[in-house]
Amino acid sequence: MKNRLVIHNALIVTCDAAHNVIPAAALVVEGGNIRWCGAEGALPEAITEGARQIDAAGAILMPGLINMHAHCGDSLFRGLVEDLPLEAWLQSVWKAEGAILPNAENCRLGAELGFAELLLGGTTTVMDMFWHAEQSFAAADVAGIRLASGGIYFDPPGMDGFGADTRYDHAEALFRTFGKSATHFVGTLPHGAYTVGPEALKTAFAQSQQYDGFFTIHAAETRVEQATVKAMSGTSVIRHLYALGVLSPRTVLAHCVHLDEEEIELIANTGSHVAHNPLSNLKLGSGIAPVPDLQKHGINLTLGTDGPISGNDMDMWLAMRLAATIHKGVREDATAVSTGEALHMATLNGARALGAEGALGSIEVGKRADFILLDTTAPHASPMFDPITHLVYSAGRGDVRDVFVGGRQVVENRRLLTLDVAAIAAKCRALQPQISATQKEAP
Amino acid sequence: MKNRLVIHNALIVTCDAAHNVIPAAALVVEGGNIRWCGAEGALPEAITEGARQIDAAGAILMPGLINMHAHCGDSLFRGLVEDLPLEAWLQSVWKAEGAILPNAENCRLGAELGFAELLLGGTTTVMDMFWHAEQSFAAADVAGIRLASGGIYFDPPGMDGFGADTRYDHAEALFRTFGKSATHFVGTLPHGAYTVGPEALKTAFAQSQQYDGFFTIHAAETRVEQATVKAMSGTSVIRHLYALGVLSPRTVLAHCVHLDEEEIELIANTGSHVAHNPLSNLKLGSGIAPVPDLQKHGINLTLGTDGPISGNDMDMWLAMRLAATIHKGVREDATAVSTGEALHMATLNGARALGAEGALGSIEVGKRADFILLDTTAPHASPMFDPITHLVYSAGRGDVRDVFVGGRQVVENRRLLTLDVAAIAAKCRALQPQISATQKEAP
Repeated sequence: MKNRLVIHNALIVTCDAAHNVIPAAALVVEGGNIRWCGAEGALPEAITEGARQIDAAGAILMPGLINMHAHCGDSLFRGLVEDLPLEAWLQSVWKAEGAILPNAENCRLGAELGFAELLLGGTTTVMDMFWHAEQSFAAADVAGIRLASGGIYFDPPGMDGFGADTRYDHAEALFRTFGKSATHFVGTLPHGAYTVGPEALKTAFAQSQQYDGFFTIHAAETRVEQATVKAMSGTSVIRHLYALGVLSPRTVLAHCVHLDEEEIELIANTGSHVAHNPLSNLKLGSGIAPVPDLQKHGINLTLGTDGPISGNDMDMWLAMRLAATIHKGVREDATAVSTGEALHMATLNGARALGAEGALGSIEVGKRADFILLDTTAPHASPMFDPITHLVYSAGRGDVRDVFVGGRQVVENRRLLTLDVAAIAAKCRALQPQISATQKEAP
Repeated sequence: MKNRLVIHNALIVTCDAAHNVIPAAALVVEGGNIRWCGAEGALPEAITEGARQIDAAGAILMPGLINMHAHCGDSLFRGLVEDLPLEAWLQSVWKAEGAILPNAENCRLGAELGFAELLLGGTTTVMDMFWHAEQSFAAADVAGIRLASGGIYFDPPGMDGFGADTRYDHAEALFRTFGKSATHFVGTLPHGAYTVGPEALKTAFAQSQQYDGFFTIHAAETRVEQATVKAMSGTSVIRHLYALGVLSPRTVLAHCVHLDEEEIELIANTGSHVAHNPLSNLKLGSGIAPVPDLQKHGINLTLGTDGPISGNDMDMWLAMRLAATIHKGVREDATAVSTGEALHMATLNGARALGAEGALGSIEVGKRADFILLDTTAPHASPMFDPITHLVYSAGRGDVRDVFVGGRQVVENRRLLTLDVAAIAAKCRALQPQISATQKEAP
């Protein structure tokens, strides 16, 4: 049978709702979907005939990770500006972005670099907010990663060189051009409540409704943002968004660090999703998101890495590890955020936020075959009393050996098959002097 | 020239006091020491004659990392007990340790597993508190890692099966047997102020003075510990240790999470060192150490991973990343703990705490040749505006390619040359049922 792939002898961590784990298991992929999954001994012989077969003895097979908040193109500026208070940091970053990103080819390069990092680290779906999103969609198709992106809304002049008057039409074109592919999720991505006015926020939300797409926005990330929005709108970020009617099951709120009880209830009652970005919140000094409180209210929590200028990488393993440990430390409660919950944040909950719970986020028959094989021969993988504990507290990006998206292998034995990483890195090096120069100009 | 090794074309991050970085640099090793270090172009040709030569173009060369608090043998129990409050967690852990560790061979196996992980991750020196330390020293000699260890003091029956009456003699034997090797640091390691009485603490400290060794103890890790010591001694942990006269420049205090201003001054004024264990403090719900305050008082801060039952790995890159980010997040101050400071915590400051600042912790002529080569071809290493920022915010254990200790290569192209990792892992797997059984017995 053509296009059939059988993985043998894996330890499958399904990440399904019940956290089922299947030791010595087989997985059968056909037409990009999971056709069969179960104990190796129960695998019907006929199903393997003529299929490509991979022996994954000793490896863990699990769903590809879903990164629900990133700015992949910012990979170009990784490490450019460091250890500054947020406002000074942002001024420097925007100076670089404003000079480099009007060139759409640079956005393409940044997207390629970001997608290469994500795939090699086991992330198979990413929600990405970046300029010239058509470049990102094109790069994602070549890289073989599932991309959730679309039109940014931003009232000031954008880093792409365009003004606010172009945002609706640009988003419209993205919906029409990229909305039909099974590997794309298209939505609207207003930057924040302090950079996008009420009317534009409502327009962006209506547009996402019209195309049944997602709606995502930076929300309640910092105290300065809260103060700014309060001064502009008379109320807090979440109340402001609620009053505008943009909180909904299609809404993904990135960050949600500074919230009061009533705001948490607004998020919960509207069925909005939250993308927790633990590393970014630490490094930029934004604060600690009230994750255990969000959990108590039943909010669907997903994980993001944020962009590599606030990271400085996009390591979903680190995001998981932090999500499972920071809140224990800050609250002095070793039971806060279980490993199972952290693992779901990086898999099934992301799929749910994308409205794709039936297709992504877990290893279950009928879902798309987005999965990774993890090496378990490193010392840090021995012994292994519980694979879920291992994945959250000990595994890392360096353990990711093979990656499949929709049944297509994109990483083989730690090598990316779809993009030339060395060539991308060389182009980035060539661009470095131009990027550095943006920081040397008179302010 | 025999035993001469020349590394060419590396980007050397010296980690010296001034954080000097030398692009396109060469390093010459002779007799286990760094003989020459500088720009490739200035390398005297005669010095390379007959030497083994390695082209490290594109790699970063930096000192091996120094892990100042670990329990390597606890690798055997990695992931056994999770997500429990500290007291319940400790009861379960001690049940396993008490059953498994009287067997000295098991301690040896745990040490080997731990050292394998540390070396593959770029750690070349570790301060390790564990039972049957003679097993650890023997394993360290084979593994090729520098080990700081010695006799534990512990008033209750120990996990090694011995009682408090054996501790002095055991420590004495360790000083005499292992104290003369250049790769060993021998000291006394009382477990804590709540498990070791005042007289034994004084004895342990006097013994470390007699042999000019180090003295290390868990201190001010949790609120329960503080309350226990208060009930026993009438005062806080640090004041108690100060009153006993065991705070000194040979003292390494592990954790120091719960401190008041006066206690910080006692640590500073006595020249004691602190081993910050950020991941362990988070995962066990111990709390957040007041690192910026310790820095303000000029205390020498080092980094540790703690044991892999509170980790669950011993990843010094993660420890660095956390040290540089948690305090920014918790204090909402993006300038807290700079990357340079975090890097020194993992290198030069560790050497200082060991009284070995002249021999370890940085790439400088005359020091021991403990260094690592880091791969920079992964996407997360591009671009690289500042190698120090890269090391702290983006690099990871998976980037460690080659490791040298005293000029001896112990890791080559990500493979450990000194121990058989697969055989160690197989032995651990074989031991797993026996370890699991300790958790199933009636409490």
